[in-house]
Amino acid sequence: MHHKADSRDKSNLSRRRLLTASAGLFGSATGGRVLADTLADVPRREVGAPLSGQSDRSKYVHITRIPEAGPGVRKVDPFDAINSKTPLNKLVGAITPSDLHYERSHSGVPDLDPGKHRLLIHGMVKKPLVLTVDDLTAMPSISRVNFIECTGNGWENWKRADENLTVQNTHGLVSTNEWTGVPLRFLIDLVGKDHESTWMLAEGDDAAGVDRSIPLTDEIVNEAFVAYGQNGEPLRPAHGFPIRLIMPGFEGNLNIKWLRRLKFGDRPWMTRWETARYTQLLPNGKAEQFQLRMDTNSVITSPSGMMEIRSGYNRITGFAWSGHGKIVKVEVSTDAGVTWKAAELNNPVLPKAQTRFQMDWEWDGKPTKIVSRSTDEKQNIQPDRKTFIDQVGTNALFHYHAQQTWSIDSAGRVRNVLA
Amino acid sequence: MHHKADSRDKSNLSRRRLLTASAGLFGSATGGRVLADTLADVPRREVGAPLSGQSDRSKYVHITRIPEAGPGVRKVDPFDAINSKTPLNKLVGAITPSDLHYERSHSGVPDLDPGKHRLLIHGMVKKPLVLTVDDLTAMPSISRVNFIECTGNGWENWKRADENLTVQNTHGLVSTNEWTGVPLRFLIDLVGKDHESTWMLAEGDDAAGVDRSIPLTDEIVNEAFVAYGQNGEPLRPAHGFPIRLIMPGFEGNLNIKWLRRLKFGDRPWMTRWETARYTQLLPNGKAEQFQLRMDTNSVITSPSGMMEIRSGYNRITGFAWSGHGKIVKVEVSTDAGVTWKAAELNNPVLPKAQTRFQMDWEWDGKPTKIVSRSTDEKQNIQPDRKTFIDQVGTNALFHYHAQQTWSIDSAGRVRNVLA
Repeated sequence: MHHKADSRDKSNLSRRRLLTASAGLFGSATGGRVLADTLADVPRREVGAPLSGQSDRSKYVHITRIPEAGPGVRKVDPFDAINSKTPLNKLVGAITPSDLHYERSHSGVPDLDPGKHRLLIHGMVKKPLVLTVDDLTAMPSISRVNFIECTGNGWENWKRADENLTVQNTHGLVSTNEWTGVPLRFLIDLVGKDHESTWMLAEGDDAAGVDRSIPLTDEIVNEAFVAYGQNGEPLRPAHGFPIRLIMPGFEGNLNIKWLRRLKFGDRPWMTRWETARYTQLLPNGKAEQFQLRMDTNSVITSPSGMMEIRSGYNRITGFAWSGHGKIVKVEVSTDAGVTWKAAELNNPVLPKAQTRFQMDWEWDGKPTKIVSRSTDEKQNIQPDRKTFIDQVGTNALFHYHAQQTWSIDSAGRVRNVLA
Repeated sequence: MHHKADSRDKSNLSRRRLLTASAGLFGSATGGRVLADTLADVPRREVGAPLSGQSDRSKYVHITRIPEAGPGVRKVDPFDAINSKTPLNKLVGAITPSDLHYERSHSGVPDLDPGKHRLLIHGMVKKPLVLTVDDLTAMPSISRVNFIECTGNGWENWKRADENLTVQNTHGLVSTNEWTGVPLRFLIDLVGKDHESTWMLAEGDDAAGVDRSIPLTDEIVNEAFVAYGQNGEPLRPAHGFPIRLIMPGFEGNLNIKWLRRLKFGDRPWMTRWETARYTQLLPNGKAEQFQLRMDTNSVITSPSGMMEIRSGYNRITGFAWSGHGKIVKVEVSTDAGVTWKAAELNNPVLPKAQTRFQMDWEWDGKPTKIVSRSTDEKQNIQPDRKTFIDQVGTNALFHYHAQQTWSIDSAGRVRNVLA
């Protein structure tokens, strides 16, 4: 997470080293002189800046997303960018800061006037309605901490491994926020949805007009909601202001941003976003449609691509998540997948949210590979790369969730590899 | 939470009104013409702004803290401000945005160089240590969603009720973030604390050098930590960058910001911050010292001071929190405390964190008063104002946690009153 990722990565604290050093430095009971020396260059106290309406980041903290134009095209004119990736390697805890939640947009980021915005709910319903944003914020609400993940997350590593990639490049299209809004079930009751309606069309108010057909399973009717809040505040424009759909555990593109319409019907609408786009090309040349749920996944964020570590104590940490529910186990291998050890999961472990894991590790300084694999409450286990590719092939673009391997050479350089 | 609090408060959706209106507007099965009319002034779609490194707030969203100079002194030069209050009336969910977490500082907001900052741990220990920030971020970590509350929160209403106050004025010195850092127990083991040491001094690196003596109870040793992360990112300077102490459930001033020293001893140090300041003047003229735990509290944030509501459906919502653990019940009275009804608690309910509650309410348009009271898992019940004042008197400044009453007149105006 640190202000200077490089220096931090080199200075990882070896407990043994620390204890050895402290025994030397502070061998005597007093140790005052050495302490004074150690503290000599600590700056003098100074009166700080005045209190403010909003607290900015420290001038020493540089933490930002990376706008990208697509797989392998990373340095782009912002107008060409189609996504902007979250710096997973610099985050701590489980929550993603609101302004660093990943972006994936098909026609830029509109900043809609909430006073003029409307949500139309119609189709196979008894009472079609047009709601204002004020109408929605006055209704009963829920809050959920959920991950959203672009179905293209991981595509960087589908066919080859660029060793210069960081975990922000390989996995930065997943983020976790606390979302607040109106349960879909409440809106369904309000308009009186016909029992025969089994699908819902959700349409965005961006220029691309992204719209998707969503099957009205019990799980989706019980868990989906129309959100107006993100980490305690109104949605930011990049994340759908003033309202968006939240579909916990399902493809990011189903969480329609700038939501303007919900239409109820009895079959999918076959929009371009589920025919020309967001279908999965299988090894046999056919395409799978409506593969909506995000899979069991995990990645080590430290040590990770382009970091450097020292021999001795290193803390391994990362994220695990699953569209099926809670993460129940994350195992880490520090010998290229030969042996595995359970990592510790930070509490609380929430369903369909990124879960932080960590494990102590003493690195002996010899070249090796580290890798993580997660298991969710439905007993789905994250596959290794070979198993995954054997099943899905290399023509597909979406739902890559194979185990991520980082190699470490004798100099402590951490690099992206396929396995 | 909305962009225009006033317009939102006036437009609260009456279900009955909505259903009546929709029956009229959409009485026919098609209703297409009317829908088209309703949607006529929705702006045309436009291509949005390019993707970015950080997502800013909407230009339509105005949400900010209020810097204040003290009880009753609200319009001040920023350099005179001693605190800056969180806009509870504009928040949704449970998390406070990082830049809106309340501030309480005694000598402004220093922005310390994390490369030069040091944490000294010494006193009754076997191996005194000086740690860098990089040392700390490399250690095993925990994350906790916890409220922090200034012990002066609520003082606005101790003696009188200014009817022009909002809930931001009366209760804006409490906030909830996800904090990440190193368990105190880990550091205690690292330096080898003497068993005879029962107190710890924590000292800040602000110009005021705020320092407090903390009793090393099992609860505190098990739950306190040295944090470097806040809602997924590095602490902001206003909240202690690069490191601060987190003391879940205890007075805000014990969560020492800009932490530079932990010293272990066998008695309190009697600093100015626990003798001249932060002691509680009792009715008998004596003062209570080390009243450290924050009490069971709650407040309705909508409808709340200076809002206006309409008769019909109104959603009542607010926050409850307790330094003793989890909130188990929030009751709301809409008839000035005569009858009470249990509100719904949003999940997950986390210990020592703000918990969102809400309740549907049909207001008949007659003048009334609304009030909330919380109960925590230790069966502490938030007292009414009379009971609280009978016990504590009106000389004290801290730990005000009596039930908050809002009056509503026949025009729907919501105002701050004592009871």
